[in-house]
Amino acid sequence: MKNPIHLMPLILVAWSMQAGAADPLPSWNDTSPKKAIIAFVEKVTKEGSADFVPVPERIAVFDNDGTLWTELPEYFQGIFVNDRIKAMAPQHPEWKTEEPYASILKGDVKKALAGGEKALLDLVMATHAGMTTDEFDKQVTDWLATAKHPKTGRPFTEMVFQPMLELLDYLRANGFKTFIVSGGGIEFMRPWTEKVYGIPPEQVVGSTGGLKYELRDGKPVIVKTPSLVLNDDKEGKPVGIQRHIGRRPIFAAGNSDGDFQMLEWTTTGSGARFGLIVHHTDAERECAYDRKSPFGKLDKGLDEAPKRGWTLVNMKDDWAAIYPEKK
Amino acid sequence: MKNPIHLMPLILVAWSMQAGAADPLPSWNDTSPKKAIIAFVEKVTKEGSADFVPVPERIAVFDNDGTLWTELPEYFQGIFVNDRIKAMAPQHPEWKTEEPYASILKGDVKKALAGGEKALLDLVMATHAGMTTDEFDKQVTDWLATAKHPKTGRPFTEMVFQPMLELLDYLRANGFKTFIVSGGGIEFMRPWTEKVYGIPPEQVVGSTGGLKYELRDGKPVIVKTPSLVLNDDKEGKPVGIQRHIGRRPIFAAGNSDGDFQMLEWTTTGSGARFGLIVHHTDAERECAYDRKSPFGKLDKGLDEAPKRGWTLVNMKDDWAAIYPEKK
Repeated sequence: MKNPIHLMPLILVAWSMQAGAADPLPSWNDTSPKKAIIAFVEKVTKEGSADFVPVPERIAVFDNDGTLWTELPEYFQGIFVNDRIKAMAPQHPEWKTEEPYASILKGDVKKALAGGEKALLDLVMATHAGMTTDEFDKQVTDWLATAKHPKTGRPFTEMVFQPMLELLDYLRANGFKTFIVSGGGIEFMRPWTEKVYGIPPEQVVGSTGGLKYELRDGKPVIVKTPSLVLNDDKEGKPVGIQRHIGRRPIFAAGNSDGDFQMLEWTTTGSGARFGLIVHHTDAERECAYDRKSPFGKLDKGLDEAPKRGWTLVNMKDDWAAIYPEKK
Repeated sequence: MKNPIHLMPLILVAWSMQAGAADPLPSWNDTSPKKAIIAFVEKVTKEGSADFVPVPERIAVFDNDGTLWTELPEYFQGIFVNDRIKAMAPQHPEWKTEEPYASILKGDVKKALAGGEKALLDLVMATHAGMTTDEFDKQVTDWLATAKHPKTGRPFTEMVFQPMLELLDYLRANGFKTFIVSGGGIEFMRPWTEKVYGIPPEQVVGSTGGLKYELRDGKPVIVKTPSLVLNDDKEGKPVGIQRHIGRRPIFAAGNSDGDFQMLEWTTTGSGARFGLIVHHTDAERECAYDRKSPFGKLDKGLDEAPKRGWTLVNMKDDWAAIYPEKK
């Protein structure tokens, strides 16, 4: 046996690396999802490795509702719609008797939505079209500044998942470009995603309404029109990815069957791929729901995840914290 | 008077800065456009100045045809369409007699296009729809590898303007994010813009056809469908900018009246803004055309540029070189 003193420099290097490298995912327990994420990032970023992916191709896509922030008791954008209908009511005296507005104003969301898709579309268009993009941006920003989550009383932008914020940071620190690909409205997310998630407007993909460029009193504006250009859900998600990004992602995170095709498209490409599903299992700290939920239903994804090698994150066991600490 | 020796360090610093700073725009003559560009970049990047713009808001948009590369004798994508019709003809025996294909196959583009917009749309859809995005990407890449410009005999990807390549680099070196916003097809540009312009697929905006996600033999593909989701020209350009970028640019470059609204939208925002129009004035080294050209018509823009403070680049006088040196 050679003199073990020869190994000392190596041991010292290893020791100092361990001491120096802070845990990039401190709100993740040391269970299998965290280990799988780190193993994936290490192999695709290791130059010379068979799984190495050049920086420009490190595209990561994230669903928003239920993946980056909570989606219950209903999608937060739905609460925004409710609040906007109430705020706009004085300018629309006819809403007192006209459905679905009348029921919303009486606080009966269930009755309002009894009109099905048509009723929902009416409500969305009444609150999301007809104004300029600047005006809408201001409405969203003003609403977020004061609105509170009905259960926790916290601002909606604090109802984001701390482990996912860390994951976004960790991926970006490793050369990934992070995108949102959400069924939510693209213009509803853009005013705040940079501040909250570090994701700039040009990296937000979402359901998209029509836009029209025009001059108002000689001043150019872009007006939101009542039409749907992209329904960024299910089969629409790979379409949104291709339309806005033009590359196939190598990392996708979702939480519901609305994300199934995005996960499928991402993980069936060649080379190393990662699919992640946030499974809402924590009734105490957040919510517990899956196969039968009207919001964020996760059924097919639960069955398919093991077969397809997707990582299921069990919120209760895998996350040490859910939300950021109160400011 | 104090001893001038005190000034020596300052003089030395100034001298060394001048010697050290390479000209960022060597293919631009020292005429007013170059000076205006540099003055603009210096003021918006100078921290503490009234015109300072934070890095994330330094969005620059560029038209492609006639702005970043030549657009005559016709749009290069039109030449691609012609070549594709000829390549596809053996699979379409009916095209021998069916217009507009029959005329294209006989080399009579003028007669083919006598059918107006319908004929053009038929040709575009026949060559741009029905295949997967991967297949189309390969068709464009293969075509560019062998096709040559009819006048110069150079590959189309070498028919790009050297001064504009330098401008793109210069803006990026100063924290700008550069985007293409072109009337050309988004999927036609994405396969090569990163290599040629340093602009990645996710920063390319263009006219956009429909897409459909589906499984073929159990394998997911995205298929191009014969519909138009965005006509990224004139009023469509600010719409494309909002849809894909979600921020108002502070720098826009174009060359035709198809870029008018993009320049207007960019330069009427608050704070420092820059509008640039490439005026094709060099019949000898490139082409000379403006108000009466069927391609890249520049009429309103010529009249409005001085009133709106847009910088007109006179290709003949302001550019020391047109194309990159032959490889």
